[in-house]
Amino acid sequence: MNVGIIGLGKMGLPLSLQLIDRSINVVGMDQQEEAMNALREAGGQAATSIDELLNKLETPRTIILLVPAGDITESVFQELREKLSPNDLIIDAGNAHYRDTLRRHEQLKETGILFADSGTSGGVSGARNGLCAMVGADEQAAERVKEIFEAITIEDGFLLTGGVGSGHYLKMIHNGIEYGMMQSIGEGFELLEKGPFEYDYHSVADMWNHGSVIRGWLMELTAEAFKEEPKLDSIKGVMHSSGEGKWTVEAALDYQASAPVIAMSQLMRYRSLDENPFHGKVVAALRHQFGGHAVEKNE
Amino acid sequence: MNVGIIGLGKMGLPLSLQLIDRSINVVGMDQQEEAMNALREAGGQAATSIDELLNKLETPRTIILLVPAGDITESVFQELREKLSPNDLIIDAGNAHYRDTLRRHEQLKETGILFADSGTSGGVSGARNGLCAMVGADEQAAERVKEIFEAITIEDGFLLTGGVGSGHYLKMIHNGIEYGMMQSIGEGFELLEKGPFEYDYHSVADMWNHGSVIRGWLMELTAEAFKEEPKLDSIKGVMHSSGEGKWTVEAALDYQASAPVIAMSQLMRYRSLDENPFHGKVVAALRHQFGGHAVEKNE
Amino acid sequence: MNVGIIGLGKMGLPLSLQLIDRSINVVGMDQQEEAMNALREAGGQAATSIDELLNKLETPRTIILLVPAGDITESVFQELREKLSPNDLIIDAGNAHYRDTLRRHEQLKETGILFADSGTSGGVSGARNGLCAMVGADEQAAERVKEIFEAITIEDGFLLTGGVGSGHYLKMIHNGIEYGMMQSIGEGFELLEKGPFEYDYHSVADMWNHGSVIRGWLMELTAEAFKEEPKLDSIKGVMHSSGEGKWTVEAALDYQASAPVIAMSQLMRYRSLDENPFHGKVVAALRHQFGGHAVEKNE
Amino acid sequence: MNVGIIGLGKMGLPLSLQLIDRSINVVGMDQQEEAMNALREAGGQAATSIDELLNKLETPRTIILLVPAGDITESVFQELREKLSPNDLIIDAGNAHYRDTLRRHEQLKETGILFADSGTSGGVSGARNGLCAMVGADEQAAERVKEIFEAITIEDGFLLTGGVGSGHYLKMIHNGIEYGMMQSIGEGFELLEKGPFEYDYHSVADMWNHGSVIRGWLMELTAEAFKEEPKLDSIKGVMHSSGEGKWTVEAALDYQASAPVIAMSQLMRYRSLDENPFHGKVVAALRHQFGGHAVEKNE
Repeated sequence: MNVGIIGLGKMGLPLSLQLIDRSINVVGMDQQEEAMNALREAGGQAATSIDELLNKLETPRTIILLVPAGDITESVFQELREKLSPNDLIIDAGNAHYRDTLRRHEQLKETGILFADSGTSGGVSGARNGLCAMVGADEQAAERVKEIFEAITIEDGFLLTGGVGSGHYLKMIHNGIEYGMMQSIGEGFELLEKGPFEYDYHSVADMWNHGSVIRGWLMELTAEAFKEEPKLDSIKGVMHSSGEGKWTVEAALDYQASAPVIAMSQLMRYRSLDENPFHGKVVAALRHQFGGHAVEKNE
Repeated sequence: MNVGIIGLGKMGLPLSLQLIDRSINVVGMDQQEEAMNALREAGGQAATSIDELLNKLETPRTIILLVPAGDITESVFQELREKLSPNDLIIDAGNAHYRDTLRRHEQLKETGILFADSGTSGGVSGARNGLCAMVGADEQAAERVKEIFEAITIEDGFLLTGGVGSGHYLKMIHNGIEYGMMQSIGEGFELLEKGPFEYDYHSVADMWNHGSVIRGWLMELTAEAFKEEPKLDSIKGVMHSSGEGKWTVEAALDYQASAPVIAMSQLMRYRSLDENPFHGKVVAALRHQFGGHAVEKNE
Repeated sequence: MNVGIIGLGKMGLPLSLQLIDRSINVVGMDQQEEAMNALREAGGQAATSIDELLNKLETPRTIILLVPAGDITESVFQELREKLSPNDLIIDAGNAHYRDTLRRHEQLKETGILFADSGTSGGVSGARNGLCAMVGADEQAAERVKEIFEAITIEDGFLLTGGVGSGHYLKMIHNGIEYGMMQSIGEGFELLEKGPFEYDYHSVADMWNHGSVIRGWLMELTAEAFKEEPKLDSIKGVMHSSGEGKWTVEAALDYQASAPVIAMSQLMRYRSLDENPFHGKVVAALRHQFGGHAVEKNE
Repeated sequence: MNVGIIGLGKMGLPLSLQLIDRSINVVGMDQQEEAMNALREAGGQAATSIDELLNKLETPRTIILLVPAGDITESVFQELREKLSPNDLIIDAGNAHYRDTLRRHEQLKETGILFADSGTSGGVSGARNGLCAMVGADEQAAERVKEIFEAITIEDGFLLTGGVGSGHYLKMIHNGIEYGMMQSIGEGFELLEKGPFEYDYHSVADMWNHGSVIRGWLMELTAEAFKEEPKLDSIKGVMHSSGEGKWTVEAALDYQASAPVIAMSQLMRYRSLDENPFHGKVVAALRHQFGGHAVEKNE
């Protein structure tokens, strides 16, 4: 049995190596020669085009996409849609928006090509050693999906979540929760930093990770981070985001769910990108207008 | 009739001048010689000590405090409590916390000294030309309070709000609403600034102030601010606060009111004081830990 | 000069009457016979089809749409696009999403049909007596737009905001600000209701509307509402919304603006639709799981 | 070695049993006879008064308080302060406010009585089998604190956090983070419930707890809760709170930390107590006033 992996990046390469460990052959493809070499060294095959990749796969073919959501996923998907045969299976394991996934599923109708959408969590180390995966799939593809994902997920870390789209929706929500949890942890440590006591943050996070209600992987990583740098002095408090938090808030708006914590987590990320926010200028100017309060001036 | 004014600052001096315009004599006191001179020039009397001030007032005396909330109000109040006579009236027209006002009221029990608490709004121009005032007062002081405040408030802009404490509580809530409105306006203009169209903000605010649902004094001031500087370029987006927003959120916590908008308005002011927020460092470090996402480094 | 009005509803009919007052003839169309009769009585003409309406208009024609955003606007627009001639002008005065407006503008390219988008504020009374209007328009249509809107807006309440789309974007933001202001006022009165003092809310709102920083039309309306019913006892605390707040939050997400107050205002509206929120069940269940805290049971 | 435990409730009794398991004798006291009997059965001693308890303890005595924060803690503490001798040690293991703890510490000055404050986490099961404990202590008490707490905490789950007060402050922040995490999880599941797909929530939570970024004890408990009842149908979405979340938000206000997620978590709990929120009535009334929008009526 072999599978094709398109995209050998931060997630795709370690996942390929894990598949090879689990005795599943991999035919990989990526624009970075370095990644291709790493795959070859681990015993995988490298393809330089989708045509070559398709030729090297046993039929019915199984192809996992691990390319960035958006244009790249779209163009790879459309090329596959044209070139694949009935019973071939595309598994989009990237972070596509569930509405795009639903649309693509619609486009596969009457082609006989099978589709599955996998949300994967566990970060880079999980990709290498055992993931958590939530996968929506066409019914006819369920068994094939199971075979692959049970190989690369940790025990009890795999779930067939329902039909196509349900994997990506669930992963989106997972990330929304993650945003809220991270912001919550961040706020807590800010309250330690600004409060009246001195703590060793590594010790605090490590202790909290042993027996407290808030123990978990994020707390473990918090301990790791403070171990590397006790006050995170070198790091700027700028929080980027990669889309899924935004989508979760949009879903909250679409489904009329009040999700204030997830929403604020996303909005605070945007706030962190602004050194001199315009709303602040307006409020400062208004305070000056009615109360004569001094404004701070830009230098 | 004359009244004593302790504190001839941003609010106290224009209020004194207005009282004089309304034929109420003022005996004022302030540590700034300049303010004392301004009062004298306008026809008021200046006192250099509380004792002198008390001597210059007709009995029963009426004394308006316009000093900063906190220690100064406390020490002036305590001195007055010792030196005043039954039927003398203290009107605290500063922004004291209503719980302090209640405590002070309690301390006046059995002294025969009367008390009133006045929350005043309308900014500096209102202090000079006609305020909005919400005043809690001992029942026996109601008529005297009315006589003074109807002189210095604009038509329909005066309300006897109930017993002592109710004036300051109401003013606190007024400011909480004000915080929410200002933040709301600020956010709206930020959305114009970041959005896909170019607007002349002065024209926008001025138009909104003529006939729209959101017309009002804050929109008028917004128009003023943008008239002075079209993009507020010189102003830093740092939003200070002077306590009443914080108290309002504390009241929300005490009375179990979910006041998300007022709370967020206050919290965003604190956020604006932080150039490199610690919660952001933690979140950035966590993203790096689990996802290998790049962090921005301090220079 | 005459104009066509499609949609004689809550806004369309009073606007038509105002146009007639200003000596602009109106040819109106609506599915409600009652509205058509009201228009006839006021001296306007009623048309029962778009074809009839187009025949009754002087060329180049000017047609104002005041139909609900979404499907109805779309179908009316598409019919007009097919039937109008170069130099005819469509003014969409409904609350369309600015992206739909941009798309429609694109579709008019090379037809010679002119387009303008008007955001109007001021409520029903404004529609009858003088609106606030923010209008984006094709350059060639600017003079015609001005002529009509200067007739039906209050002094200084009209602004040509730029190209097509800019009117609807600005109106959307206006409503976002309005949401924040209203929520802010609501929270303030909740804090009065839950706090330790008793107030007469009508008197409070009326006093605040005379001289305070937060005076404005919304405070005037708050006073009105409490005048009609001192504690709003008959009203359920359910806050519906009609789309523009949601769009504003989506714009905040799209343009990476942290707009916590506007976002929370919208989310609290959704929250108010939920009598038994699922997030609450989860949190209650969790408290029970780890701390043995009692949960409340549904009856 | 023996220790006194005052308060044999939800936390105190299992903790006593655990101490006995670890060969530390317990002299316990509680107003509930049932708890006293359970202690006796497990081999502990029961005292019916503080005097009796003090008599039964080896000197220097060690007494752990596990009574509710507030009045009860205060009265027990004050009685102990009068009756204890130098080198006796009070460990307040309840959830006292850190400012109260600091005040009590101050009151022990010059008495020679030692003090420690322990924040404990891990819920009821942790109290029985191994806690997480964060303890601030007088330096002279450090070794004695260590000996006891290392016996009853899980490995790496104990931290001496610094001087007196630092334990309770840290526990407060811990709970603030917990509030944010719980709300975040709750919002996520609400988004599943309202979204377009059907999930088995127990399976989802269980899968997320194996390998995902958001794995941890709260997710494990979420899985448990959904295992007991797939949709939590019997539970009302009312979220009570016991003070520490509120204190955390107050600390955020005091130390000017923007903690929007923790704040919103607390405010949503208050929101859940309100079936018919007053702010909603005001907003609904305003929408009716300016836009003629229908309001929902109470029945």
